[in-house]
Amino acid sequence: MRLIVIGGDAAGMSAAAQARRKRGPDALEILAFEMGRFVSYSACGIPYWIGGVVDGPDALVARAPAEFRKAGIEVRTRHEVTGIDLAAQRVTVRDLDGGVSRTEHFDELVYATGATPVRPPWAQVPEEGVFGVQTLEDGAALRAWLDTEKPESAVVIGAGYIGVEMAEALINRGLRVTLVEKAGQPMGTVDPDMGALVADSIRQLGIDLRTGVTVEGLETANGRITAVATDSGPVAAGVVVVGLGVRPNTALAQAAGLPVGTTGGLRTDQRQRVVGRVWAAGDCTEVHHRISNRPVHVPLGTHANKQGRVAGINIGGGYATFPGIIGTAVTKLCDLEVARTGLSSREAEQAGFATVSAVVESTNRAGYFPGAVPMTVKVIAERDSGVLLGAQIVGRTEAAKRIDAFAVAVWNRMTVSDMTGLDLGYAPPYAPVWDPILIAARKAEEALRKVPPRP
Amino acid sequence: MRLIVIGGDAAGMSAAAQARRKRGPDALEILAFEMGRFVSYSACGIPYWIGGVVDGPDALVARAPAEFRKAGIEVRTRHEVTGIDLAAQRVTVRDLDGGVSRTEHFDELVYATGATPVRPPWAQVPEEGVFGVQTLEDGAALRAWLDTEKPESAVVIGAGYIGVEMAEALINRGLRVTLVEKAGQPMGTVDPDMGALVADSIRQLGIDLRTGVTVEGLETANGRITAVATDSGPVAAGVVVVGLGVRPNTALAQAAGLPVGTTGGLRTDQRQRVVGRVWAAGDCTEVHHRISNRPVHVPLGTHANKQGRVAGINIGGGYATFPGIIGTAVTKLCDLEVARTGLSSREAEQAGFATVSAVVESTNRAGYFPGAVPMTVKVIAERDSGVLLGAQIVGRTEAAKRIDAFAVAVWNRMTVSDMTGLDLGYAPPYAPVWDPILIAARKAEEALRKVPPRP
Repeated sequence: MRLIVIGGDAAGMSAAAQARRKRGPDALEILAFEMGRFVSYSACGIPYWIGGVVDGPDALVARAPAEFRKAGIEVRTRHEVTGIDLAAQRVTVRDLDGGVSRTEHFDELVYATGATPVRPPWAQVPEEGVFGVQTLEDGAALRAWLDTEKPESAVVIGAGYIGVEMAEALINRGLRVTLVEKAGQPMGTVDPDMGALVADSIRQLGIDLRTGVTVEGLETANGRITAVATDSGPVAAGVVVVGLGVRPNTALAQAAGLPVGTTGGLRTDQRQRVVGRVWAAGDCTEVHHRISNRPVHVPLGTHANKQGRVAGINIGGGYATFPGIIGTAVTKLCDLEVARTGLSSREAEQAGFATVSAVVESTNRAGYFPGAVPMTVKVIAERDSGVLLGAQIVGRTEAAKRIDAFAVAVWNRMTVSDMTGLDLGYAPPYAPVWDPILIAARKAEEALRKVPPRP
Repeated sequence: MRLIVIGGDAAGMSAAAQARRKRGPDALEILAFEMGRFVSYSACGIPYWIGGVVDGPDALVARAPAEFRKAGIEVRTRHEVTGIDLAAQRVTVRDLDGGVSRTEHFDELVYATGATPVRPPWAQVPEEGVFGVQTLEDGAALRAWLDTEKPESAVVIGAGYIGVEMAEALINRGLRVTLVEKAGQPMGTVDPDMGALVADSIRQLGIDLRTGVTVEGLETANGRITAVATDSGPVAAGVVVVGLGVRPNTALAQAAGLPVGTTGGLRTDQRQRVVGRVWAAGDCTEVHHRISNRPVHVPLGTHANKQGRVAGINIGGGYATFPGIIGTAVTKLCDLEVARTGLSSREAEQAGFATVSAVVESTNRAGYFPGAVPMTVKVIAERDSGVLLGAQIVGRTEAAKRIDAFAVAVWNRMTVSDMTGLDLGYAPPYAPVWDPILIAARKAEEALRKVPPRP
């Protein structure tokens, strides 16, 4: 029996590792192909590497190929799978360094190719000084540019998680940073009122945040970037980072006839099976959103790891399912902490929910305790049932991970009314006697009472 | 209509405030009696005041009597209620400064007398230099002693939450501190294996922790404390703090014929009603433990506030219930963070559960992220069902409040298996890609699989 894994990052290598735990090398041969030089790394750590907060790239690698080999998992980096023949149970693999292609037989196949950065037409001609931050190679290239060219100004395009984290990394390195966002707010994953708090904080860091601005092209001299052209004029740039999100990397799968869903991600069943002996996991797949009951594409390492683990357990003869996601995410921007779970107001509306929301200002610690700082908590509940649909937090410290309590409440479909009685941890260094979560639940409960009955 | 409140701290004043929100001064007169000089204060803040971390006593007062008066709530401090006549709807009140007693009529009564420190016989003779830390007056007396007598050594008796916090406060003031505990571990609210981690940390702070040691008496000279006599010899002490826990203060209620439960606390219904128009809330009551399904006495400000709010809403003509507790608690000892929720292993056993537990070592942040420090997480699950019964955390930073996610999971009776799929917040500054909570749930799930089937 032979398992072939396409893609050597979180999802693929988690699958490989779990399959190996279940089945020894005599029962199952495992062979993983990775296009890049690195496997099993934390792409989420790249902005911190660029910013000089953590070392890289080696520190970002959880397990090197040699370690996998010791565990009986053969890993071939710089090997690109260029074709899948499902009927013949074969993949075609090209050695990117040697240039040779060959075919390899599989009994089980894990498709874990990840996602591809979104690049508008203007960004598709490679210009010197324009970078994505998707792979460790991207990170290394950007760092080399920063170290050798020493640009004074940077433009980051896109103010989602990666864009915001990259803007911080670059300003920490002393660059003048402009952050350009097409939408009216940074971090479109939170509601506009919470986004406004984030925008204020970004500007307080000295980042020139420009919302509602569309990029129209790149300006270059001698093939090197000089500025970003926007609908409100050019912005000088010695380096450009594009953070416009990613799309599931499914070209190979589609060519092989594997089913792709409405989000563009591969469709799998509960056990991460695509068809027959083909499995998929990670950023190349779509996942079930437990609250909207819709398929969504949410490229996050935490899901990739879980999905990979589930696929590996099943391949290894065990039984596991991936239960779907609820949209939890946390971000740090210097001392600003932003978190969300469940559905935002807009997402809830799009899913057809009528909602009531409440926003409260509280503090992370008892008001009299040193280090107490403000924290804003928003709660979104279904209008008639009072079921918690989502929550968002913006704070300064000890704020973001509080979202986990909300996440578990969303997961269990608690009502905000039930939440007001929750027994959460209280001590002055950790919370006011009414935890911000409880205050928000109380305020949402009150808001629900004021909603007029439906006609 | 007149509401009389006996006891002016968290429970009583929350009840008064909520009743006032529901009913204006024309519909309801509210009169609160408090024995001490302060109302509505954070007793939990006293150790931090003693340790010089926060100011006091005023900073610990949430609302002063004058503020309550402005809100239409009459507060009389230094007034002790000495009798309740239920049939006549009257209380007898003594002005502790004037010495005069009078009776006051009530239509509704809130009994919120709090708890009384446990004092063994040897501690019942007041000696100079021996203190409790129950009220702000206690705190002020201890601070005055420390400031004027400048003792070099302190003995703290009892290594529960208060004892541990007081030991830290005193060592922060430069005293030599011995912490004496009868049981084999500090913080009996966590399992012995977690308690051992706490013991190590206490000792690393330079606190002389002596477990398994019984106090036999106090040694004095000229009426002033000189040492604590124990079954393993005397310990010199220029000041002694007694932190042996508290008992519900129900003498007055029992004299009036009100029902007291097996824990010694007043029994109430779901709405905090004792009988007829008598309500009770806070440390003087017993509460329902949602997991053991037993009444328990858990004197914590967070419960007192919630119960008081519930009583006040009901008195004001609204409807609210207190859903019970699950035993969540968090403590800080310098940079050590300790948290628990649900049942400990012993509590689970006492409640009749067969359990399986798992302990994992992880970190608060991604391992490669600066500031990543170890964190130990213990999960206790029911043997056959896999339902999460409790969890405990010992860590260094960003650890304790993670208990809230466990608390919401316990509250919703999740299985550890379901918990392995939870969508918790992930970003390198906040968690490893597998959050410690998920790792613990996975390990507990594995442990459950290994349990042999019952004969």
